[in-house]
Amino acid sequence: MRDVAVLGVGMGKWGELWEKSHRKVWTEAALAAIEDAGVERVDALYVGCMSGGLFVGQEHLGALLADELGMGPIPGTRVESACASGGLAFRQAVLAVASGAHDVVLASGVEKMTDVDGNAATYALSTAADQEYECFHGITFPGLYAMMARVHMHQYGTTRRELAEVAVKNHAHGALNPRAQFPMTVTAEQVEGAAMVADPLRLLDCSPITDGAAAAIVVPLDKVKELGKGTPVRVAASAHATDSIALHDRKDLAWLASTHRAAELAYEAAGIGPGDLSFCEVHDCFTISEIMVIEALGIAERGKGGAAAGSGMTALGGRTPVNPSGGLKSKGHAVGATGVAQVVEITEQLRGASGPRQVDGAHWALAQNMGGTGASSVVHVFERI
Amino acid sequence: MRDVAVLGVGMGKWGELWEKSHRKVWTEAALAAIEDAGVERVDALYVGCMSGGLFVGQEHLGALLADELGMGPIPGTRVESACASGGLAFRQAVLAVASGAHDVVLASGVEKMTDVDGNAATYALSTAADQEYECFHGITFPGLYAMMARVHMHQYGTTRRELAEVAVKNHAHGALNPRAQFPMTVTAEQVEGAAMVADPLRLLDCSPITDGAAAAIVVPLDKVKELGKGTPVRVAASAHATDSIALHDRKDLAWLASTHRAAELAYEAAGIGPGDLSFCEVHDCFTISEIMVIEALGIAERGKGGAAAGSGMTALGGRTPVNPSGGLKSKGHAVGATGVAQVVEITEQLRGASGPRQVDGAHWALAQNMGGTGASSVVHVFERI
Repeated sequence: MRDVAVLGVGMGKWGELWEKSHRKVWTEAALAAIEDAGVERVDALYVGCMSGGLFVGQEHLGALLADELGMGPIPGTRVESACASGGLAFRQAVLAVASGAHDVVLASGVEKMTDVDGNAATYALSTAADQEYECFHGITFPGLYAMMARVHMHQYGTTRRELAEVAVKNHAHGALNPRAQFPMTVTAEQVEGAAMVADPLRLLDCSPITDGAAAAIVVPLDKVKELGKGTPVRVAASAHATDSIALHDRKDLAWLASTHRAAELAYEAAGIGPGDLSFCEVHDCFTISEIMVIEALGIAERGKGGAAAGSGMTALGGRTPVNPSGGLKSKGHAVGATGVAQVVEITEQLRGASGPRQVDGAHWALAQNMGGTGASSVVHVFERI
Repeated sequence: MRDVAVLGVGMGKWGELWEKSHRKVWTEAALAAIEDAGVERVDALYVGCMSGGLFVGQEHLGALLADELGMGPIPGTRVESACASGGLAFRQAVLAVASGAHDVVLASGVEKMTDVDGNAATYALSTAADQEYECFHGITFPGLYAMMARVHMHQYGTTRRELAEVAVKNHAHGALNPRAQFPMTVTAEQVEGAAMVADPLRLLDCSPITDGAAAAIVVPLDKVKELGKGTPVRVAASAHATDSIALHDRKDLAWLASTHRAAELAYEAAGIGPGDLSFCEVHDCFTISEIMVIEALGIAERGKGGAAAGSGMTALGGRTPVNPSGGLKSKGHAVGATGVAQVVEITEQLRGASGPRQVDGAHWALAQNMGGTGASSVVHVFERI
């Protein structure tokens, strides 16, 4: 297997993009990545999209987007793993290059979620959970994560204020990100006073419904100069693991086993541990998610993730900044694109090109993207070169 | 890249499987493949599914099915390329093994289409075409293929009877296949007298709406004895190509450029030509499709595909039997599973285990699976060993 690098990235501003079509949102990100990489061709593309069928009535995205790209009859493959679709598309692109099957691969993700109303979006998102054993009974995603939050609070004493501190931190980061959907700062009091969604999760504990896309060009590390002009970042590890899809089948509702397993594999492949990370981008679809993810990644001890945001440990300037982009919470969560947006942030950070939210001296970074309530997790490790 | 083999296959009877859930249909095929291969583990799985969201309200199938398989936290990846989803899932599994990423990979496909009514199924299938530029105007898949048929008839003189002969042949083959959804023989007169769907295509020119799954175990060729007990078949080539998704962007509506391109790549990789094929399984979603596919594969000359079925050339016992399984027409077309079902038929044929529909002395075989009106095509070549 060959070493692999990201040579270019592209991503527009996320939000309610009603003036742009699904394919246009994607195409802007894809062309930006191609330009940033300075490559003259694309040999294949992968696109992560959770539910083109339910959100915009369009499946068959691999072919559609290869056509839209106008670079000939290249293979275009859509992969789906709910909210981890983007991370998984990036992983398939990495495998395609590592294997020698292709040299210049476009990894991308897209979702256009605001063309349907809230009920339809809630239903579409629920298809990431177990339709027959969870959703049939009326549960939605905030409800599932609310149960996980309650268990975490019960087992470890995690507080309502600690949940709020995650939102406060990520909005503070997102306020420095011109691409963020909600680049406003919030206070803990505002989070705790926001409308209740599913106890204990309130509106400002939840990531938003977002239109957006992101793209990255993946090439063999030893051909970066031959193939393009971008500043490369090394992909040091790629790992993917699963867990039971339904919460009732898990041993511990307050533990993300798939993230832990994928992280173990990724750390081993990269030859580093969590203490080596300069920062990471993680899947904070709800405030409780970030707390559980940093425990599964070993950035906080099991049960101790609640204190991380409020203590400053995971803020910009702290020991291990988490979500300098603003995360899903502030930057937005275009579900199929989120995993690739993490790669965009990490690539720019490791190039030292993140402006006011730059993590000083960033060398190692990790991206964690998950689907459902953690039934699937994809973890990548990146290194500055 | 390592040489790859199929070591086991599994598939149940296709049809209206109202007594079985989506996951159960898949699990039966997957467990049958594992048993047939005699492997003790699965390292990763790929599943092709066109629209879990629109047909059964369930996305995130990679994680769901890895969970259902009960073989630990293995990576489970869903890929989608409309009706080519199964072929593309098989291709991703081949790449995963060829690259060295995994040793024992389950390639699979599933679709449960009859849990929704006909209108909803027609809508779900239309998401394989260009939603904004084709479906918006009310066209459905029989309408798109009817236009292609009319152009083929106009350019080459292909007749209504020649379309019918494809259905007659494939139902004659399917009558020998205990897994087929519609294992009855039909006459040309019956096809020509069936209810009109989209002129010139009548009901018996169209493949049916089907519930079904199929699975195959893919391993490195040099480890077949170490990893399992099945009778292996070599995967000699895997190729994937795309074309414009909307018909109005094509130079020639009567030519499947993506199939032609994928076939060129596959023949080159396998070191053979169409004349070497003992038989093939192709994507006869409509009778006109098989005629156009065999032209794109070089089995018939361009414009001359219409005569193939009626002349006996593509029938069992003919020069190059096409769709000994009965094809999509008789065996059924569970869209996400069709590409893997082709692999099941080919594996059994190359083992000499196809009973009354056995192709004598079969050595080389080809599978062609396509999405939409040919916006994506996946071609695999297999060799008896």
